[in-house]
Amino acid sequence: MSLPRIAVDAMGGDEGVRVMVEGAALARRRHDRFKFLLVGDEERIKQALANHPNLRAATEILHAPDVVSGDEKPTQALRRAKTTSMGLAIDAVKRGDAGAAVSAGNTGALMAMAKLSLRTMPGIDRPALAALLPTMGEHDLVMLDLGANTECDARNLVQFAIMGAAYSRIVTGLPAPRVRLLNIGTEETKGTEELQAAAQQLKEANASLAMSFDGYTEADKLSRGDVDVVVTDGFSGNIALKAVEGAARFVADLLKRSFASSLRSKVGFLISRPATELLKHHLDPNNHNGAVFLGLNGIVVKSHGGASALGVANAVAVTARLLEENLTERIAADLASVGAETIRSSSRRKTAAAQDETAA
Amino acid sequence: MSLPRIAVDAMGGDEGVRVMVEGAALARRRHDRFKFLLVGDEERIKQALANHPNLRAATEILHAPDVVSGDEKPTQALRRAKTTSMGLAIDAVKRGDAGAAVSAGNTGALMAMAKLSLRTMPGIDRPALAALLPTMGEHDLVMLDLGANTECDARNLVQFAIMGAAYSRIVTGLPAPRVRLLNIGTEETKGTEELQAAAQQLKEANASLAMSFDGYTEADKLSRGDVDVVVTDGFSGNIALKAVEGAARFVADLLKRSFASSLRSKVGFLISRPATELLKHHLDPNNHNGAVFLGLNGIVVKSHGGASALGVANAVAVTARLLEENLTERIAADLASVGAETIRSSSRRKTAAAQDETAA
Repeated sequence: MSLPRIAVDAMGGDEGVRVMVEGAALARRRHDRFKFLLVGDEERIKQALANHPNLRAATEILHAPDVVSGDEKPTQALRRAKTTSMGLAIDAVKRGDAGAAVSAGNTGALMAMAKLSLRTMPGIDRPALAALLPTMGEHDLVMLDLGANTECDARNLVQFAIMGAAYSRIVTGLPAPRVRLLNIGTEETKGTEELQAAAQQLKEANASLAMSFDGYTEADKLSRGDVDVVVTDGFSGNIALKAVEGAARFVADLLKRSFASSLRSKVGFLISRPATELLKHHLDPNNHNGAVFLGLNGIVVKSHGGASALGVANAVAVTARLLEENLTERIAADLASVGAETIRSSSRRKTAAAQDETAA
Repeated sequence: MSLPRIAVDAMGGDEGVRVMVEGAALARRRHDRFKFLLVGDEERIKQALANHPNLRAATEILHAPDVVSGDEKPTQALRRAKTTSMGLAIDAVKRGDAGAAVSAGNTGALMAMAKLSLRTMPGIDRPALAALLPTMGEHDLVMLDLGANTECDARNLVQFAIMGAAYSRIVTGLPAPRVRLLNIGTEETKGTEELQAAAQQLKEANASLAMSFDGYTEADKLSRGDVDVVVTDGFSGNIALKAVEGAARFVADLLKRSFASSLRSKVGFLISRPATELLKHHLDPNNHNGAVFLGLNGIVVKSHGGASALGVANAVAVTARLLEENLTERIAADLASVGAETIRSSSRRKTAAAQDETAA
C-alpha cells in the first residue's frame, strides 16, 4: 500500500533541524514506504540530509523562510502562517500535498494554525491533543486533552470524551471503551462545576455514545488498565502527563543509584540487565512520543519539544499509523453515528462561550 | 522534652479505626514520648486498643458518636462539628487539650472544620495543604496546595508561596528558598490569568519575601532538586501528586514483571535485593504520608485515606516534628516579618472574591 507523504516541520523542537531530520531518517530506515515533505530552511535541511542519502531519496524540501518560536503567542504565529515551517507544513495537508503533518514546535501555535487552516469536524468546537499511554492492562490508554486547551467548559469536555472514545475504538477495537473524567476524587461532589456538568451530560447520553461512561478517575489510577479513555482539560492533562514522565525519570535515576550502592547490587544489576533494559525502554518518554490533535479535518501530530531522533521517529510512526487507519474519516463517521451534533445542541447547561486559545 | 499530645481522628480513612489505632501504636513504639487523644467510637477504640497495651498506657479516649463520611459535602460536615470524630479532634486542638490533630478523613470537610474552628493566620485567606516530596537534590520539596482549594485566585497563590517558603525555611534551614509556580510551560505567556498575575506579584515583591522567586516550573521537574517550593491550586496539585504516586507504583510493578521475566533476571533480582528494597522504600507513598494545613492557628495533619498503619505512623511522626519545631508560631512570625499583610493589601489585581470551599 502506498502511503501519502508526511510533512515534517523540520525547524520545530528544542534542537531543530538536526534531530527532526535524523528522526525522519530513522523512521524511513524502519519503513521504506514512508515519504516526506521536509518544511523549513532549505539550505539547512539540505546540509542535514547530506548524511542521510536514504531519506533524501524519499524526500522533497519545501522552503520556509521563517520559524515559530517556543514562546510566541498563538495569535502572533497565526499572522505568519504562510512563511513559517509550521504554517506551511499544515498548509501542505490542507492542499492535499501531504497526508499529515508532524511538528515539535510551540503547541499553542500548532493548535491555532491547524484549527484555522484545517477547521474542526462537525459537532466539535475545539480540537484536543490526545496520546496513548502504556498501562498494566491489555490496551493503551487514550488521554486528552494534553495541553491544547488551557481552560475547558463542560461542552468541550463532553466533545473530548466522544472523540477520545472514537480514537480508542480505532486503536483497541473495543465496541464501547470505558471513559472517565479526571478529577481529584471519585465522589460526585468533587471537582469543578464544569466537571460535574460534563459528568451529568455524559451519564445521560451514555447509551447513545458507544462508550461506557464510568464517572471520575484520579491521577494515580491512569496506568491500572481499568479505563480506556481519560478526559481532562489541557492544563490538568499536561500537568498529569508531565508528572508521570518526571516520576518515571526520578525512579530510573533512583534505580541507577540503588544499583550503584554496593558491589553486590552492581553484580545483580549486570546479571539482570535484560530486565532493567526492558524497564528503561518502558520508561523512556521517547518511546511514547507523538500526540495527535483530534477533531480536525486532517492529521496533525505533535512531537515532544525535547524528543530525541528516536522520539521523532516514533512520532512519525504514529502519524503513519493514523494515515493507514484513516483516522480522520473514521472519527468523522464515528461522530456522525453517535450524533455528536445532538450532544452539542442538547447541552442544557449554559456554559461560558468557548474561550478560544487562538483569541487569547 | 515533653510533647503535647496528638489528637487522632480514629474513625477517618478507608479502613477506619483498626488502621488508625495500629498506626498510632507503631508511632508510639518508635517514640515513647508520644501521647495520644483517640477520638471516635469509644467501644471500637477500646477493642482496637486491646491489642496495643503500650499505646493504651499513653492514650485517653474521647468519645464521638458520629463520623464524617468520605463523600460528605463540607457544609454538611460543618453542622456536625460537635459530634463527629473529626470535629472533636480539631476542637481538642482549639481548647488546648491536644497540640495537634491528625485525620485520614474527607479532605474538604477537614479543611472546612479546621478553618472554622482554628481560624487562619493574619494575612492568610485560605489554608493550603502542603507536603514534603523527595527529590534528587539535597532537600525535600515543599508542594502546596494539594487539594484543599479546588480553585484559587492570584492572591491565594501568592499567600501559598509565602507560607510554602516559610515552611521550607523551617524544614531546610535555607534563608531564601527557591519558589516556583506550577504551570504547563516556562514562558511568560503560558497558563491561566491567575497564574500570570501571581507570577507578576511575586516577582515585584520577591526582594521583601525571604524567597527567591524563579517563575514557572513544569510537572516533570518536581523531583530534580533545583526548586524548594512549588505552588499550585489544589486541583492541579492533587492531580500532580497522584500522578507521581501512580507512576511510581506502575514502575514498581513493571520492575517486578521485568525481574520475573527470566531465570537470569530472577537471580539478578535476588542478588540485588538491597537495591530493590531501597527503591521500594522510596516508592511507597506510606513513607511520605502526612500533609499539613498551612496558615491555620494550630496544627492539623491529613493522612492519606488509603494509608497503611505504617503510613499513619509516619503522619503521626510528621505531626510530632511540626509540634517540636513550633510550626504555627514560626510561620506566624515569618509571615509577620515578611509583611504578608502588605502583600495582601497591595494586591492590585481585582481578583474574584475568594470562592471558599466551605461555602460551596
